[in-house]
Amino acid sequence: MWFLDQKDMPEKWYNIQADLPEPLPPVLHPGTGKPVGPEDLAPLFAMELIKQEVSQERWIEIPEEIQDIYRTWRPTALYRAYNLEKALDTPAKIYYKYEGSSQAGSHKLNTAVAQAYYNKKEGIKRIATETGAGQWGSALAMGCSFFDIECKVYMVRVSHDQKPYRRIMMETWGANCVASPSNDTKTGREMLKKWPDCPGSLGLAISEAVEDAASRDDTHYSLGSVLNHVLLHQTIIGEETIKQMEMAGAYPDIIVGCVGGGSNFAGQALPWMRDKISGKSTGMRIISVEPESCPKMTRGKYAYDFGDVAGMTPLLKMHTLGHTFIPPSIHAGGLRYHGMAPIVSHLNKLGLIEAQAVHQSGVFEAAIMFARTEGIISAPETSHAIRVGIDEAIKCKESGEAKTILIAHSGHGHFDLGSYAKYLGGEIMDFSYPEEEVNRALQELPEI
Amino acid sequence: MWFLDQKDMPEKWYNIQADLPEPLPPVLHPGTGKPVGPEDLAPLFAMELIKQEVSQERWIEIPEEIQDIYRTWRPTALYRAYNLEKALDTPAKIYYKYEGSSQAGSHKLNTAVAQAYYNKKEGIKRIATETGAGQWGSALAMGCSFFDIECKVYMVRVSHDQKPYRRIMMETWGANCVASPSNDTKTGREMLKKWPDCPGSLGLAISEAVEDAASRDDTHYSLGSVLNHVLLHQTIIGEETIKQMEMAGAYPDIIVGCVGGGSNFAGQALPWMRDKISGKSTGMRIISVEPESCPKMTRGKYAYDFGDVAGMTPLLKMHTLGHTFIPPSIHAGGLRYHGMAPIVSHLNKLGLIEAQAVHQSGVFEAAIMFARTEGIISAPETSHAIRVGIDEAIKCKESGEAKTILIAHSGHGHFDLGSYAKYLGGEIMDFSYPEEEVNRALQELPEI
Repeated sequence: MWFLDQKDMPEKWYNIQADLPEPLPPVLHPGTGKPVGPEDLAPLFAMELIKQEVSQERWIEIPEEIQDIYRTWRPTALYRAYNLEKALDTPAKIYYKYEGSSQAGSHKLNTAVAQAYYNKKEGIKRIATETGAGQWGSALAMGCSFFDIECKVYMVRVSHDQKPYRRIMMETWGANCVASPSNDTKTGREMLKKWPDCPGSLGLAISEAVEDAASRDDTHYSLGSVLNHVLLHQTIIGEETIKQMEMAGAYPDIIVGCVGGGSNFAGQALPWMRDKISGKSTGMRIISVEPESCPKMTRGKYAYDFGDVAGMTPLLKMHTLGHTFIPPSIHAGGLRYHGMAPIVSHLNKLGLIEAQAVHQSGVFEAAIMFARTEGIISAPETSHAIRVGIDEAIKCKESGEAKTILIAHSGHGHFDLGSYAKYLGGEIMDFSYPEEEVNRALQELPEI
Repeated sequence: MWFLDQKDMPEKWYNIQADLPEPLPPVLHPGTGKPVGPEDLAPLFAMELIKQEVSQERWIEIPEEIQDIYRTWRPTALYRAYNLEKALDTPAKIYYKYEGSSQAGSHKLNTAVAQAYYNKKEGIKRIATETGAGQWGSALAMGCSFFDIECKVYMVRVSHDQKPYRRIMMETWGANCVASPSNDTKTGREMLKKWPDCPGSLGLAISEAVEDAASRDDTHYSLGSVLNHVLLHQTIIGEETIKQMEMAGAYPDIIVGCVGGGSNFAGQALPWMRDKISGKSTGMRIISVEPESCPKMTRGKYAYDFGDVAGMTPLLKMHTLGHTFIPPSIHAGGLRYHGMAPIVSHLNKLGLIEAQAVHQSGVFEAAIMFARTEGIISAPETSHAIRVGIDEAIKCKESGEAKTILIAHSGHGHFDLGSYAKYLGGEIMDFSYPEEEVNRALQELPEI
């Protein structure tokens, strides 16, 4: 395990926009189809976050107040998975950077604290957001509690009902959490009228949170992934890891991370991307891992699409299954989003990253193996990355290569033990690729 | 936050028996009433652990193999609770040493790993134990999984049914967990015949685990608190803290820890006790905190008693409410034990520590305040210590004294959010002192 001294915690976020071989396609206004300006986003986001969204500066200072809070759990530890290597009998060296030690249990807190801070600074009293599995909602609840901001969370109903602990966690931190669709917004009420038992979806919960924020002057909206400024805040993960891998005398041949909206993956991958773009390390493979049941990277289109079901958000150029796509219910709720961060999508198009889709049963098999060797019970989302990390280590055994594999470990699975129980109980968990639903939803992409 | 470098992790446990002003009273054989010898304990414990139980050596080397596993989560961090101090508007400086970052979520792993190691070394294939709230069972399950030992956990039925996640956690690590009373032992079957809905108790689960271990040659028994060797393994907490407080330029005026069997409290307190015994710091106050509903330190007797309900264990001189005492149901399941570690009881008799009892509602009030300021959701057990830490900080505000308070933070409360919900929902949680039941049980103390 490599700790980094607190005085060596990075004090800047890394903005990959400064180094991209081609610039990102612009974000478009949903009404006009023209690129959006800061004024279009101002009703929803703090101005400082809007500036970060489009900034071309390579390094962005982390304000002292955010650093102080980061230091309540950062720097996080880098581990070598000695026991896992032994169990796999592989010559590969497996490292993992563990974000589960944050009070909220995942990497999400890195951006939650930053977003709460900038909103507080601009006088915002209340923030509305959505959450799927609950990782993001918990993180924002805690971020808001530090800055004494009211927090309203729209939680996808199926998760809300299945994971009461996540909701109680948010309430413990003082947030107000309701099941989405809810009666608190027009979007929610209309959906409930059409479909009273609607299990909800991330895209729908986003619509509710955006409507809430847009309709109140004291309230802003907050997104836990996808957007450039969110990925920016996560780069502290990779920047720390670069220093820690140096301490360990190692350099990754392969980096793997799971992708829902892409922020955890990007947080680890983007800082390393400098070496790939500069040509210092062209052979390094950076692999994003998604579930077979929600395969936007491997089967989606790279196209302009909305971030939400109702089509209220600006249009983003991204890998998408269509904003009306409804993924099969899988246990990794955090990976059920239809779209992918524009930065990650762009890097994929440029050939700088790879994408793989994996099945649930293999994911849980890997999670159990990881728990029994390394001790940590991982989130099902994270376990997608562990699965591919193990696969690569097994290939090394076959080829005899001693590759260095770095896994982006995004969080613990303490609130996902219900899914572990289902796996241990032998319930079938694989879902085939939802071809019909993908084809249907892709027909509904906006015409640009 | 103060990290200790991994190379500075203490490599010895501290054995307070070398420094006690008066020796501990002997452990007595339940049949003969004479002091027990190693051969009496050999059917249940590894010989190395029996030696540690009675050792008078001041320092005991931590074997390399245990150090290697400790280093998967140790050294743990020492925090200054700046936000809590600010919220209390107190001149006191509050520090807490956090054991919740272990993979099993509490300090229990410190001894679980050690006990699994020594048993493995002596050829033991299987370990039986009991667990109340589940912290200990999870820790031993993980310890056994590292050393490839079969693990059987008898979990108090009321916890087993209320906290399925703890059970699943144990199963994820490969252990077999049954509700106690169970049909797997004679003690369990007899109890179920008399009382089919028996909610169980720690004392009863201990009887089952001891019977299981005594009846099989390949199986040993393991206890998660109370005994001298268990407290010994926990001293790594205090030894780390001494180094970290020095890094912070601080020295505690007050140390607080919660007590169930006493191992977490002792793990932090015993190393500091050297300064108190040697006269270097006679003014330092060391406070053990127990629930009003199970008040063995403040209302029990200091007498010889059994460790279990069935009266199968050796007799220990300790603070006890009587081995047949059945505590009211409280949410801090880990504090519902009738007895107290002989070492802690002895120190109390010698006037070297203090004891306080607190009510549940105040405990949860403190837990919520801690979560909203420091972010960490604490175990209800731990929150007993937080309550008294806050009380002392409030007294400092009144007196204007800038005392340094050190809280022994034993673990997170991720699996206790059901209790948080009850508190947030306004359900009454205080139980009055169970005077009648204590008086009854004290009548049943063995005659020595």
